[in-house]
Amino acid sequence: MYQLGVVYRNITRTDSATADALAKFGSATVHEAMGRVGLLQPHMRPIYPGAQVAGTAVTVLLHPGDNWMMHVVAEQVRPGDIVVAAITAPCTDGYFGDLLATSFMARGARALVIDAGVRDVKTLQEMGFPVWSKCISSKGTIKATLGSVNIPVVCAGQLVTPGDVVVADDDGVVCVPRAVAEKTLAAASAREANEADKRAKLASGVLGLDMYKMREPLAQAGLRYID
Amino acid sequence: MYQLGVVYRNITRTDSATADALAKFGSATVHEAMGRVGLLQPHMRPIYPGAQVAGTAVTVLLHPGDNWMMHVVAEQVRPGDIVVAAITAPCTDGYFGDLLATSFMARGARALVIDAGVRDVKTLQEMGFPVWSKCISSKGTIKATLGSVNIPVVCAGQLVTPGDVVVADDDGVVCVPRAVAEKTLAAASAREANEADKRAKLASGVLGLDMYKMREPLAQAGLRYID
Amino acid sequence: MYQLGVVYRNITRTDSATADALAKFGSATVHEAMGRVGLLQPHMRPIYPGAQVAGTAVTVLLHPGDNWMMHVVAEQVRPGDIVVAAITAPCTDGYFGDLLATSFMARGARALVIDAGVRDVKTLQEMGFPVWSKCISSKGTIKATLGSVNIPVVCAGQLVTPGDVVVADDDGVVCVPRAVAEKTLAAASAREANEADKRAKLASGVLGLDMYKMREPLAQAGLRYID
Amino acid sequence: MYQLGVVYRNITRTDSATADALAKFGSATVHEAMGRVGLLQPHMRPIYPGAQVAGTAVTVLLHPGDNWMMHVVAEQVRPGDIVVAAITAPCTDGYFGDLLATSFMARGARALVIDAGVRDVKTLQEMGFPVWSKCISSKGTIKATLGSVNIPVVCAGQLVTPGDVVVADDDGVVCVPRAVAEKTLAAASAREANEADKRAKLASGVLGLDMYKMREPLAQAGLRYID
Amino acid sequence: MYQLGVVYRNITRTDSATADALAKFGSATVHEAMGRVGLLQPHMRPIYPGAQVAGTAVTVLLHPGDNWMMHVVAEQVRPGDIVVAAITAPCTDGYFGDLLATSFMARGARALVIDAGVRDVKTLQEMGFPVWSKCISSKGTIKATLGSVNIPVVCAGQLVTPGDVVVADDDGVVCVPRAVAEKTLAAASAREANEADKRAKLASGVLGLDMYKMREPLAQAGLRYID
Amino acid sequence: MYQLGVVYRNITRTDSATADALAKFGSATVHEAMGRVGLLQPHMRPIYPGAQVAGTAVTVLLHPGDNWMMHVVAEQVRPGDIVVAAITAPCTDGYFGDLLATSFMARGARALVIDAGVRDVKTLQEMGFPVWSKCISSKGTIKATLGSVNIPVVCAGQLVTPGDVVVADDDGVVCVPRAVAEKTLAAASAREANEADKRAKLASGVLGLDMYKMREPLAQAGLRYID
Repeated sequence: MYQLGVVYRNITRTDSATADALAKFGSATVHEAMGRVGLLQPHMRPIYPGAQVAGTAVTVLLHPGDNWMMHVVAEQVRPGDIVVAAITAPCTDGYFGDLLATSFMARGARALVIDAGVRDVKTLQEMGFPVWSKCISSKGTIKATLGSVNIPVVCAGQLVTPGDVVVADDDGVVCVPRAVAEKTLAAASAREANEADKRAKLASGVLGLDMYKMREPLAQAGLRYID
Repeated sequence: MYQLGVVYRNITRTDSATADALAKFGSATVHEAMGRVGLLQPHMRPIYPGAQVAGTAVTVLLHPGDNWMMHVVAEQVRPGDIVVAAITAPCTDGYFGDLLATSFMARGARALVIDAGVRDVKTLQEMGFPVWSKCISSKGTIKATLGSVNIPVVCAGQLVTPGDVVVADDDGVVCVPRAVAEKTLAAASAREANEADKRAKLASGVLGLDMYKMREPLAQAGLRYID
Repeated sequence: MYQLGVVYRNITRTDSATADALAKFGSATVHEAMGRVGLLQPHMRPIYPGAQVAGTAVTVLLHPGDNWMMHVVAEQVRPGDIVVAAITAPCTDGYFGDLLATSFMARGARALVIDAGVRDVKTLQEMGFPVWSKCISSKGTIKATLGSVNIPVVCAGQLVTPGDVVVADDDGVVCVPRAVAEKTLAAASAREANEADKRAKLASGVLGLDMYKMREPLAQAGLRYID
Repeated sequence: MYQLGVVYRNITRTDSATADALAKFGSATVHEAMGRVGLLQPHMRPIYPGAQVAGTAVTVLLHPGDNWMMHVVAEQVRPGDIVVAAITAPCTDGYFGDLLATSFMARGARALVIDAGVRDVKTLQEMGFPVWSKCISSKGTIKATLGSVNIPVVCAGQLVTPGDVVVADDDGVVCVPRAVAEKTLAAASAREANEADKRAKLASGVLGLDMYKMREPLAQAGLRYID
Repeated sequence: MYQLGVVYRNITRTDSATADALAKFGSATVHEAMGRVGLLQPHMRPIYPGAQVAGTAVTVLLHPGDNWMMHVVAEQVRPGDIVVAAITAPCTDGYFGDLLATSFMARGARALVIDAGVRDVKTLQEMGFPVWSKCISSKGTIKATLGSVNIPVVCAGQLVTPGDVVVADDDGVVCVPRAVAEKTLAAASAREANEADKRAKLASGVLGLDMYKMREPLAQAGLRYID
Repeated sequence: MYQLGVVYRNITRTDSATADALAKFGSATVHEAMGRVGLLQPHMRPIYPGAQVAGTAVTVLLHPGDNWMMHVVAEQVRPGDIVVAAITAPCTDGYFGDLLATSFMARGARALVIDAGVRDVKTLQEMGFPVWSKCISSKGTIKATLGSVNIPVVCAGQLVTPGDVVVADDDGVVCVPRAVAEKTLAAASAREANEADKRAKLASGVLGLDMYKMREPLAQAGLRYID
């Protein structure tokens, strides 16, 4: 259950080398490497195209229309972190803009993932601070109610525990739990190793039907070709 | 992270007396008693009005368009349980109908909570088996891919751990974690105790402004009355 | 523009006889009588079927997740009023339940129209207090920020000025501005007078094509019949 | 492609005995009997619960905000028909109310299926004329632009050809193409024959796992039980 | 209430210097400067990134699928205006393309804000004519029904009165009523003046917690730090 | 009705010259040239801006979360084709990525149109393979259930028959049935021929009101100008 009004200062982050190494694979490969789990809902979109990052999650739980805890979480950020923000009820307000981004960057944050709105998106792009959000909105927020920092949160349908690895790119956002981060990195690497070869074959005209030996199982499943 | 292909047979259920006692308070009071957390998203609606239940959660994780694990979870149901079903990606298919409901009822299940579709809703109402779901759909499912049973799941934006208490009525569905179930019951009882008195006062014409002593804080916040 | 933190105590209500007389026509006829304008968006649905009411609007503007002003507006309600509640940003929280309904009824309110969520819907139905809302949610709200009472608000896409007539039934909610209420009543009456005759003709098998003399304009528009 | 401005007067309807016989099976069984195809999208909901009908489709294509062709299609209705209405772009307006329903009933129509809004829903329920629609709205329409009658239309994501059978109930709406109606009826009957026996077994406590012999394929797929 | 079939030729525009000066602040700052009101719903998005404009509103009310009044409003445009288009019911059709944009630009319009669809978006970007809309759609419209020009309209949930200032950028669209435009400009200027200093402090590592003196109110609200 | 488990190898494609010639007109002009029909729903968006293509449709019907048939359809692609993918129920999964795109390109496919999700969008843009989709998602799919290839499908609300022409650009996606492709090309050419002249007039300040001679019909419809 969500605890309100608490800030956990000591969290166990995934080893930074592992987190860093996951970045280059991107969300789709990492998601496959985990066994097709861990993805945040696809309404989470980057505010500008092209960013691809990974980092360790620090989490914040906020109330609708209230970004007070954004300032509290800023203090808990360490270099290499990604802030993951969940809201207790659906909200489209703009919780985050260029001032908070300046502060987050000064603390070493790599990105923000928030299941709500953000603003100042042109400036954020100029600053090079990537955000994945549900929407974009100029609407500001108040500072009235306590939420929590560094508790497990559900963000866009996915459980994120502080210290997990978050991988985000143009395809979406994946959360890799700390306990499986190394295993996932190994699986992603293995997966990627095969891809160049597969791509070359497919580019030369070999069909997936043949490369993956699908013709027999398709026939067994009853597929009929009609001329 | 979601583990796929596992069934946990031994879960620790919340004490049944506590779970049963929470039913009569309904989701709104329980949600307040927990500090305004624990609610599943409001798209979760009952398939017929009037049902109000509480029970211990057994959980199942399913894939889009595949209800194979529904048969697996049926075996894990004990009297007093409510099945909580999450899907790995948004899906509107009808995962559950009168045959599965017959089986669930024979096992003692009190309700199903599913973030997807169900069907045979007229028959389900006649059988008196309540369901809270995202939608209603005749579309059936296949049985091809393993999910899991009795792992923690995110259902409609809320983390549900096996053995938690689920409270559901016309207002929605709340999950009460096992660790706080007793405390929540006490808080709900205390809350309810006050309500009859408040209701009588309000019915007699006393204003909430006076009953809750709001006039001064409103004035301090700057509220102006204009004639 | 919205003024925040103000309560207008003196508003000019539409003559109560006119407001009362509009109730029996229902939202569809009134909407036609106004020239097909004035309808709130169709996501506004009654929490239970069968209610049909009209009343004079008192308005309230609230913030996401904050129902403080609901207590302020209660004091401004007079018998025959309908409370119209707008939120400054989309929100699904449950702003209103049985206690507030008890207070509203004690003041003589006939209904609530709110572009957000409500709760205790089973009790509200038992009390006979109808609500038209965007959704139903157990999620409670805080009391922290000032909104306003009896300013013009946009509710579900429609401008509602205090004192306007609100007509609501199973088909939806229409706002009739005070300045045109009498004219609208006359137009609705005239419209209704024709309907019984039309219905009898159509029931006897006369086609709308003939009754409304549509065959010629359809042919002129180029309609072709193919055997 | 949609032809605009045409009315096909002669369509080949599915044999009425077949259409009538499909009604009792309901949309879920019919949908399964067809091989899990034919379902309209689940946003199509009945305006009141409990109706279960089947009939032969007469189709109408309308423009956003324009119900002129509703009067044209009325003339093409024969006893046992269900009118299926598609719109050329998403629209929530109320295209149909009690007067048109009176006319449709006088012509022998059994129901309306429309991917838009309807109104007068309380009266429609009193009249016993069922409608499946995307929404309910008081908003009326104009009569300005030609559509077509009895051309194939896409309604809520499903192709419906005039003369097909439409089966609708609380679970949704299925379209059974004329060419497969008899075969579907036979398959639905066979399916239903098994259900009573299955239901009895499940009610007695037999698990689907055993009744459907799923334990071995689940084990082969790798399902692990953890105590 | 909406009047249909009227064109107001004389409207009182906000002083052009004020309107022009508001452009550089952008929608987020202006929205804050107004007291966090005035924002159109966040589904209003620019058809291409990077545009930032302000202008005086001329308004047009259209019917679903009918853009006739777009040609009528063109004549009322003066240099420095932004056309704000509302529709009487939700519609996704493409009301506006490169030809109308050519005409609007010839009249001196700076942008279009429309709660519906537009098309020819690639050409519009090449022409440098910015549009904020609900969606993009190739679907054309007819010219059959009268709406109105320069009446107050509700566009994307916000009341816009002819002559108000509209400020739009990548963060969204704000409407500044004429009566408060100057005051808003002053407030926005004051707000902006502080920002550079704040940004520098935050960039140097000072936390918002300290800069805004939040530690004490957070502690008073009960925030607990856990090591 | 959808046939499952079949692949039609011989389809009759629209003449390639006609298909190619339609590309330059874009979806909006083609949609108008067809009489304002044929457009897929506007939720179909390009994964990157600027692409404008036309090609002959090869179709594939898939199940939720299952992309097995993508490999089957690849073999049926010929140079100049566009693959049109429909799903039997709403699904947001990522059915298609850079490997499949490599294969499709090797076969000569020009684009993919899919009413579901895709992934590897940054790579797809680098490869220059355009996709129009409902969403973007990293979520992968399984290969378990048969669909069909080259049967008529409903994709995003539009019937697409194999061999039809698909025209797609930043404004959306239009399907031109083979039978009317030539006629549509002629109509689009005629339409375009007028546009340069119209654009010049409008750019010079001539109003559409005058160019299209709308003043009289507007007056006849009752439009009133108020000074």
